[in-house]
Amino acid sequence: MKIREEVRRMKRVAPRIAASEEAQRNRILERIAAGLEEHAEEIFAENRKDLAAAEENQVTPAVRKRLKFDRDKLEDVKKGIRLLVSLPDPIHRVTLARELDQGLVLKRETCPIGVIGVIFEARPDALVQISTLCIKSGNCAVLKGGKETANTNRILFRIIHDAAVAEGFPEYCLLQAEQHNEIDELLECDDCVDLLIPRGSNAFVRYIMDHTRIPVMGHADGICHIYVDRDADQEKAVPIIVDAKTQYTAACNAVETLLIHRDLAPVFLPRLADRLRKEGVRLCGTKEVTDLVGGETIEDTDFREYLDLVVSVKIVGSVDEAIDHINRYGSHHTDCILTENQKTAEYFMDMVDSAGVYQNCSTRFADGYRYGFGAEVGISTGKLHARGPVGLDGLVTYKYKLYGQGQIVADYASGKKEFHFRDLNL
Amino acid sequence: MKIREEVRRMKRVAPRIAASEEAQRNRILERIAAGLEEHAEEIFAENRKDLAAAEENQVTPAVRKRLKFDRDKLEDVKKGIRLLVSLPDPIHRVTLARELDQGLVLKRETCPIGVIGVIFEARPDALVQISTLCIKSGNCAVLKGGKETANTNRILFRIIHDAAVAEGFPEYCLLQAEQHNEIDELLECDDCVDLLIPRGSNAFVRYIMDHTRIPVMGHADGICHIYVDRDADQEKAVPIIVDAKTQYTAACNAVETLLIHRDLAPVFLPRLADRLRKEGVRLCGTKEVTDLVGGETIEDTDFREYLDLVVSVKIVGSVDEAIDHINRYGSHHTDCILTENQKTAEYFMDMVDSAGVYQNCSTRFADGYRYGFGAEVGISTGKLHARGPVGLDGLVTYKYKLYGQGQIVADYASGKKEFHFRDLNL
Repeated sequence: MKIREEVRRMKRVAPRIAASEEAQRNRILERIAAGLEEHAEEIFAENRKDLAAAEENQVTPAVRKRLKFDRDKLEDVKKGIRLLVSLPDPIHRVTLARELDQGLVLKRETCPIGVIGVIFEARPDALVQISTLCIKSGNCAVLKGGKETANTNRILFRIIHDAAVAEGFPEYCLLQAEQHNEIDELLECDDCVDLLIPRGSNAFVRYIMDHTRIPVMGHADGICHIYVDRDADQEKAVPIIVDAKTQYTAACNAVETLLIHRDLAPVFLPRLADRLRKEGVRLCGTKEVTDLVGGETIEDTDFREYLDLVVSVKIVGSVDEAIDHINRYGSHHTDCILTENQKTAEYFMDMVDSAGVYQNCSTRFADGYRYGFGAEVGISTGKLHARGPVGLDGLVTYKYKLYGQGQIVADYASGKKEFHFRDLNL
Repeated sequence: MKIREEVRRMKRVAPRIAASEEAQRNRILERIAAGLEEHAEEIFAENRKDLAAAEENQVTPAVRKRLKFDRDKLEDVKKGIRLLVSLPDPIHRVTLARELDQGLVLKRETCPIGVIGVIFEARPDALVQISTLCIKSGNCAVLKGGKETANTNRILFRIIHDAAVAEGFPEYCLLQAEQHNEIDELLECDDCVDLLIPRGSNAFVRYIMDHTRIPVMGHADGICHIYVDRDADQEKAVPIIVDAKTQYTAACNAVETLLIHRDLAPVFLPRLADRLRKEGVRLCGTKEVTDLVGGETIEDTDFREYLDLVVSVKIVGSVDEAIDHINRYGSHHTDCILTENQKTAEYFMDMVDSAGVYQNCSTRFADGYRYGFGAEVGISTGKLHARGPVGLDGLVTYKYKLYGQGQIVADYASGKKEFHFRDLNL
């Protein structure tokens, strides 16, 4: 069957999932955890096939590490599922209750978004995290994982889907897309799919954003900045910058541009440059920077996302210049100020227009797990709906329920009746 | 200057507005109210020019009524502004505070969306409502009102803009677009404009949605349904349907399709048809309906938004058939069930995938004022961000602020340190 037909069926069962009770959704999660354990050896065997193929295709060891699904990873995802079960129900929560008039009661209640398409990198644990987050929040999901883990994904999906159906969810509550061309078909399902969450390279996410009318949540670029203020503690600054640049260079929250206050530059920059070079980091900078510490001179507007052991450096004259640079050239992901001056810090954090604004710590903290959300479906740099790391909260919307006893608007328009707007206890 | 240049300047001052204090924003609102009163006679004189032109151009009396800005309208908008001043600050609100580890504190804080473009119909009071909602919520706004009220809009905008600048807001905090071609220019400013809110005809909103990469909040169609359940109270049903259809036919929340349970149809439909025809409403229906009560026979899939004294009627065999019809052919705006059976009502309200789901009252209640929000910038049928009538809450987003003391991720990745995730009191 074409994916469009399947997604259409999913759309029709979505309200049943939306109306489902928490107990049923938690039972599914528990059954998934049990199913993963029960089929552990089969999963590992399928994963070995993927790993062997990766080796044959000369995939780099760093990437192969992400493909691996072993006992440790299994324990991690089971722990994640148990955490999800323990979290309060994100849907059917009443967030506003108001009597508009005698016998006319308005309630705002959280509910799932509906049908969500998630396209993610080759990481088997991501498949489990994303599908269980969707089940907990009452959403239907179309899952498309990276092809390098096709065998592992197939068995994981079957276990998860079987658990959902065994506990009474309809057949079309979850779908797996396996072919790359199905992505393009999915992009055209704007009448059935409520949200797309693409994860992956800048070019891939941009392609998705440019080729669909479905709302997209996520981020393309991750050009994160660290601004070293005049009042920075230089002892703290160096390890934070080293961590933000080198702890995991391929991450979207790795730092790409350093802005250094001019008063600090003559002393701090040489020291920082030495340390970064010791860590294998190549420096690019404006002429003012390279005059001081060498490196490749770049134009004032050429600040990129390297995702590698390279960093851009620029000298600025004030916190305002730093803010302006970040708002203009950044990607509104995560930006940090290093300063001991709390007033400057607050000013920077209010003025910088990003999902995450940090003081005196590594930009690498921008992550759902590190924020205590349990897991994340992605990180959003958009300003509507969820922003930053997206956990359960970002997978729900709300509806207004109005309970009446025959009320009509004409009576209020004519002045015969009047609203009294009395908030009720939640 | 081209609108693109002006919007670019607005984007650069937006962080200053975002960081502004509540007291300043409230002072601006008070100055606006005073300014409107002070210039009342000039406003009325400009409005008379618009009204004279409308009469000359043979604009219908119903539309002319909306163009009018007189003493009553002035008192209304002043009342609205005073209400806004009294409402709590929607920004700078901390909605999550969590210690991730010793000395590493995460806060989630509400903040404005940034630069919002609002394109609205010819209604001078709308200009005041929208701009004051934006000021209260710390947003910059580009306002484009209907050309039929150009003179009134110009003086209102000047008073509002002058008040903002007099209280210290920068020149480019608010912009007025007056030419229709400026809309197309605005649609291309996806690097500067964070959100578009178009109000107006279905075709116009759809045009906006199809011609921009900027997120759009609003609704194109308003195909609202009333389902008359087997357990409906027929005495209540007739006046509710009459109100929902006739109280203001041009509104997006007017009912367009009636779904009647088959068991009720033989008795209820003739009675309803009589009453609707007395109110001047023309009936269209499926063959089963027209066989019973006459009217124009329509195909099962031809259910339209009439915005006029016309209604579609269909007979359904169950609440599930009604739900399925609404989810498939509706516009996810506002849909109502008439029933005395609370279980059926809850089932319908959970299963119908719309911004508003009602029991036993008119769909015409779907409105920011009637929900007690003070005012609205529009009604959203999207599922991301704000849904239903959008007041101050829908004009804010949030950012994560992380305060550290030199923490780096490597320490947590290596197990040297551990997160303890302790929520702090708000």
